[in-house]
Amino acid sequence: MNRLSLNQITTKSWSLPEAVRGCAERGVEWIGLWRDKVAEVGADETARLLREHGVRASSLCRGGFFTGVTPEGAAVDGLTQTREAIDEAATVRAEVLVLVVGGIAGGDLVGSRQRVADAVGELAPYARERGVRLGLEPLHPMQCAERSVLSTVDQALAIAEEHPSDAVGVVVDEFHVWWDPRVEESIAKAAGRIVGFHVCDQQVPITDGLMARSLPGTGPIEHRRLRECVEAAGYQGPIEVEVFDAELWRQPGDQVLDQVIEAYREHVAAR
Amino acid sequence: MNRLSLNQITTKSWSLPEAVRGCAERGVEWIGLWRDKVAEVGADETARLLREHGVRASSLCRGGFFTGVTPEGAAVDGLTQTREAIDEAATVRAEVLVLVVGGIAGGDLVGSRQRVADAVGELAPYARERGVRLGLEPLHPMQCAERSVLSTVDQALAIAEEHPSDAVGVVVDEFHVWWDPRVEESIAKAAGRIVGFHVCDQQVPITDGLMARSLPGTGPIEHRRLRECVEAAGYQGPIEVEVFDAELWRQPGDQVLDQVIEAYREHVAAR
Repeated sequence: MNRLSLNQITTKSWSLPEAVRGCAERGVEWIGLWRDKVAEVGADETARLLREHGVRASSLCRGGFFTGVTPEGAAVDGLTQTREAIDEAATVRAEVLVLVVGGIAGGDLVGSRQRVADAVGELAPYARERGVRLGLEPLHPMQCAERSVLSTVDQALAIAEEHPSDAVGVVVDEFHVWWDPRVEESIAKAAGRIVGFHVCDQQVPITDGLMARSLPGTGPIEHRRLRECVEAAGYQGPIEVEVFDAELWRQPGDQVLDQVIEAYREHVAAR
Repeated sequence: MNRLSLNQITTKSWSLPEAVRGCAERGVEWIGLWRDKVAEVGADETARLLREHGVRASSLCRGGFFTGVTPEGAAVDGLTQTREAIDEAATVRAEVLVLVVGGIAGGDLVGSRQRVADAVGELAPYARERGVRLGLEPLHPMQCAERSVLSTVDQALAIAEEHPSDAVGVVVDEFHVWWDPRVEESIAKAAGRIVGFHVCDQQVPITDGLMARSLPGTGPIEHRRLRECVEAAGYQGPIEVEVFDAELWRQPGDQVLDQVIEAYREHVAAR
């Protein structure tokens, strides 16, 4: 249970201070931070709050968007934004900076993937100098066009292994990869390179591309099997519960976090 | 252009006789049939209409659901239904019977995939005796839980190649597989085994899991690249335009088919 991390998007209505306090009150030792919530109080204050409450940042979400477009289609300088995110990750002492690599630019899928590899090559030394590990997170194929041209653990590993293992790794988020017929093999191949494990369930059927998650145990994902895979591949770090669920978001943060802890204990943690 | 096939779901408002006539009037030589539309007039009448108008059935959709559950969660005897579909495919002289293999049963993803392989093993001789080719169609991962535990061309090929190539092949539908980083390699590996090629574009972003298609040329899919891949792998058969689009479905069939022909000529056919 001491590896449970609350990814703060799950308790969306909570401010960052509320989320940190909520975790501390329940003995939850980890929190997955989002840059917009950090921005509300500032990185230094975030670091102070974490220290004060004895909570650590399992990750900072996010850097990336290396293909130059946001999911909404606006132009973005992903390299500059990611350097800022790296600095912030260092300040809040996050274990990893999650990278969402960006969707297709210029109608060229293959070229867009190459751009991602090149961007990681450029940023890895910058991150390493600051003691920040980059975590390439493959996203669900339904988000390929506008959000991430990286869709599988194999792809993420192929980029990561070009760099020192303390610089670039792979984030395995169940929601995005559970369906992959190669998921177990890919995780095993990524031994030593896994820098994050995120859990949730999938709503069935998917009616909204972004809001299709639910608490672990409410859908088809086999959490213990996947946890055992990542652990066999050497990952013993925090396990983030990350849920985008409109119904859950309507509830008070306290109520949500209690359900998160229960779902994690019941469906994810070793018995 | 003589390889263009109208998958009749694209002109959903048309009855089967209307769709066959619409194709014949425009010199479209192929049609992708759906069992519910065939049922409205009967298989024998369908065969007669096709012969009368000089249109051929590029496929019959569908058999499958081997894991015993429909997408809505009802119990179904996939093997029995598929035998009926095979008989129907023979009657209407469809080039291939498309198989949608079914979602997860019993909360067991790996076991469900094995059930699919076993079912194909049982049905391949039945199909072969009747001169019907089975086409395993991997579906988009967002439909894995409830509709298809087969998500990649590689997976479909692994099952198909256990059987004679005139009995079981792979249907490549762009919508389902375009994002796959291995799509070109997988298609090349499937040389000689591809029995169908379906085209459309993807709406961006995906807001509805089922209604996320659009006409070729309106989204990120690289149609000529994928067509060239399947052709290099030996596929020279019909190319079906298959679109689930609420806006398109509101239009009269004539208007839709004219747009289909134009989109195909502009974005799919060899220049």
